[in-house]
Amino acid sequence: MSNINISIPKGTRDFLPSQMMSRNYVFAVIRSAFERFGFVPIETPSMENLSTLMGKYGEEGDRLLFKILNSGNFLQNIDFTETNQNKIASQLCEKGLRYDLTVPFARFVVQHYNELTFPFKRYQIQTVWRADRPQKGRYREFYQCDADIIGSDSLLNEWELMQLIDDVFSALKLNVCLKMNNRKILAGIAQMANCSDKLSEITVAIDKLDKIGLENVCKELKERQIEQQSIDKLLPILTLGGTNEEKIAKLKKNLPNSDIGYKGIEEMEEIFKYAQSVDFKLNMDIQLDLSLARGLNYYTGAIFEVVSKDVQIGSITGGGRYDNLTGIFGLQNMSGVGISFGIERIFDVMQQIHPQINSVENQSLAMFVNFGKKETVYCLNALKKMREEGINAEIYPDSAKMQKQFKYADSKGIPFVIIAGENEIKESLFALKNMQSGEQNILNLEEIINQIKNIKQ
Amino acid sequence: MSNINISIPKGTRDFLPSQMMSRNYVFAVIRSAFERFGFVPIETPSMENLSTLMGKYGEEGDRLLFKILNSGNFLQNIDFTETNQNKIASQLCEKGLRYDLTVPFARFVVQHYNELTFPFKRYQIQTVWRADRPQKGRYREFYQCDADIIGSDSLLNEWELMQLIDDVFSALKLNVCLKMNNRKILAGIAQMANCSDKLSEITVAIDKLDKIGLENVCKELKERQIEQQSIDKLLPILTLGGTNEEKIAKLKKNLPNSDIGYKGIEEMEEIFKYAQSVDFKLNMDIQLDLSLARGLNYYTGAIFEVVSKDVQIGSITGGGRYDNLTGIFGLQNMSGVGISFGIERIFDVMQQIHPQINSVENQSLAMFVNFGKKETVYCLNALKKMREEGINAEIYPDSAKMQKQFKYADSKGIPFVIIAGENEIKESLFALKNMQSGEQNILNLEEIINQIKNIKQ
Repeated sequence: MSNINISIPKGTRDFLPSQMMSRNYVFAVIRSAFERFGFVPIETPSMENLSTLMGKYGEEGDRLLFKILNSGNFLQNIDFTETNQNKIASQLCEKGLRYDLTVPFARFVVQHYNELTFPFKRYQIQTVWRADRPQKGRYREFYQCDADIIGSDSLLNEWELMQLIDDVFSALKLNVCLKMNNRKILAGIAQMANCSDKLSEITVAIDKLDKIGLENVCKELKERQIEQQSIDKLLPILTLGGTNEEKIAKLKKNLPNSDIGYKGIEEMEEIFKYAQSVDFKLNMDIQLDLSLARGLNYYTGAIFEVVSKDVQIGSITGGGRYDNLTGIFGLQNMSGVGISFGIERIFDVMQQIHPQINSVENQSLAMFVNFGKKETVYCLNALKKMREEGINAEIYPDSAKMQKQFKYADSKGIPFVIIAGENEIKESLFALKNMQSGEQNILNLEEIINQIKNIKQ
Repeated sequence: MSNINISIPKGTRDFLPSQMMSRNYVFAVIRSAFERFGFVPIETPSMENLSTLMGKYGEEGDRLLFKILNSGNFLQNIDFTETNQNKIASQLCEKGLRYDLTVPFARFVVQHYNELTFPFKRYQIQTVWRADRPQKGRYREFYQCDADIIGSDSLLNEWELMQLIDDVFSALKLNVCLKMNNRKILAGIAQMANCSDKLSEITVAIDKLDKIGLENVCKELKERQIEQQSIDKLLPILTLGGTNEEKIAKLKKNLPNSDIGYKGIEEMEEIFKYAQSVDFKLNMDIQLDLSLARGLNYYTGAIFEVVSKDVQIGSITGGGRYDNLTGIFGLQNMSGVGISFGIERIFDVMQQIHPQINSVENQSLAMFVNFGKKETVYCLNALKKMREEGINAEIYPDSAKMQKQFKYADSKGIPFVIIAGENEIKESLFALKNMQSGEQNILNLEEIINQIKNIKQ
């Protein structure tokens, strides 16, 4: 058919209608939950100034930013004697593509501070780009779905996010487990083990416990210059068993002299108290998991992660409390708590657990067969009336062979086909064929509309 | 507050919640109309290979593509003795950002040919990027909303797009005029004026009639090497007056020997016949405007444009029939017809004509006042119940001063505030305050839910 080499850049995807329908179903569930909880939408540009993005995601992150070549005479400022790639890149490019939604949100809050009412509850569903090595389940362009409440340090917000998790995953009919921890407790544990100065190294290492196991975490802790004495104190606490209440009781005993640790314990107690006062829809295990650390270093309080009970795919949602997200842009002391639904992984889980679910209501419910110009004109008014009644419907545009027209309806999953031949037209009726049962009835338009509306509900 | 210079790249925009709500309203109207007409969604990547994009939009278009710096060692292939900017750019960059949705759609159809059922009715709502000089109403990042029916040459598809225009603009309550023409008629007119070889120059020039006037069009035609003799023949036809029927009758007389011209006339007659057989909701003037040309050179049949009757802003929607869109990627003879809603201009018109309209239903309808921990726990179950009933609701997270909490509800446009003090809690009741009327009633939860649901309808 074609001898032209057509393809898309590696790590990017086209979405076919069938994929779009399942994706749109998940997006709609999350968007509707965000709105039911009082979050309002914002959007930020795909491109940010590189000065906004650089240095916010670590060295690795800087490397993974997609940079956009300056337009116009982009060569005029280049120093060709320069041999450092990064320096030349920054001469060639002023803008980069969004790497996540968090830094743009922080920039947005600072830039529009006077136009916003705090506490500000925003949600944002947009694509982000990372020049990562593409591999199964990892793309260079993907969506993020974030919600944050910023400008309030009330722990009620943490409860709201727990309710939101319950709302979304019960609507998606997925069994999940909610793991929680608190950065202040981790700080307290580090204090108790005499390695407070190494908190960030400790969190990075223990964050991998699930993936690499206890032995390798110990190895990594050693590599990161944590003394054996400290490791021996850390590990029994980080791997503490029992119910949440038992863990809290043991922590209280073990961290008696750590103010920050105790603050973290109190926070979790208050959050759990709210959680117990209102039922969840899901039978969602809520586990205080003291080895949960989450890599990002802006978290300062409660942190959490959601994992599927049925599919081994890692965290499908995560988030936490931060005290100074906007500090990088000069606005201090804005406490907030945020959640990010890992939408691409959630799609993967849905594909495995509920492969059939999609937004069926958004597809055509009826197709008029096309017998030729005369019959068509008879159908057009019925088609219009049907759409006015809110029914998605279409007419096959060409008077092709019946078989071809039915094949079209079938491949599009259209449940009803409507036929009007000479006899039906004479009596102002139509033949309605149910594509699944094969049943066919001669009806008037009103009856047809009612029958299709019934299937819609 | 901040001494850090924060900004976004020129020509890009942040959208605040209030803007998002009006934008989302318009998007929802268009998306719902697309689906009611049987169009199915697709998405393509933001980035395409530059080999897919280059040469498809003319020289000017190539210049306006945003190019993405290759990741990794981007300097390794550069020939620094090269002085041609474009050549260096193509060594530095393999990928570019989407310039429109049409070329990616053509690429998609060819690449996924075997996975699609034809006629293929797709819609696509995504952002595009152009490195244009930013000015009022012109952005470097903006949305396009396109629908196409490809793989069918039936003129019923043109009628469908006319119905779609009627559906969308009647839902948006905008008065519009629909201008139509046919590229085959233009070809016939060029033939009659002995300048068939200059059809593309003629369309570019007469397309500007509205903007620059008749005299300047003549001047441009001359500059584009059209002979005076030809211009004298062209102009009386291009500016033909009268009803559509009168214009068609005059055309038939004036283009007796042009097969292609006559074919165009017949096409328009058939399209108008379909249009007359079914009422439009809008009192939409449908004008056969023989000076309508539309710049893009892939159109081959009917072309159309929608203009607002109330706001002078140029075309707010346009489209037409093409016979060989996918030819550039090696797939011949795929006839199709497409429409593009100029969503950013439609927003501007809506802002002027219906400044109040937005998707109110997506915002919070009720806020619980926060009196402190004890009262809060009483409210949380009510809040959850309300959300389960599909009501968007929230609780103020901090037990701040009443005034502050009411100001928050007010600035967010929340119509109801719910208060539970000691007395209400004792009797399992709540005080419901209507923020607009100031009225306040003591009610039970069920009564409150009913009252809020009533305002929702």
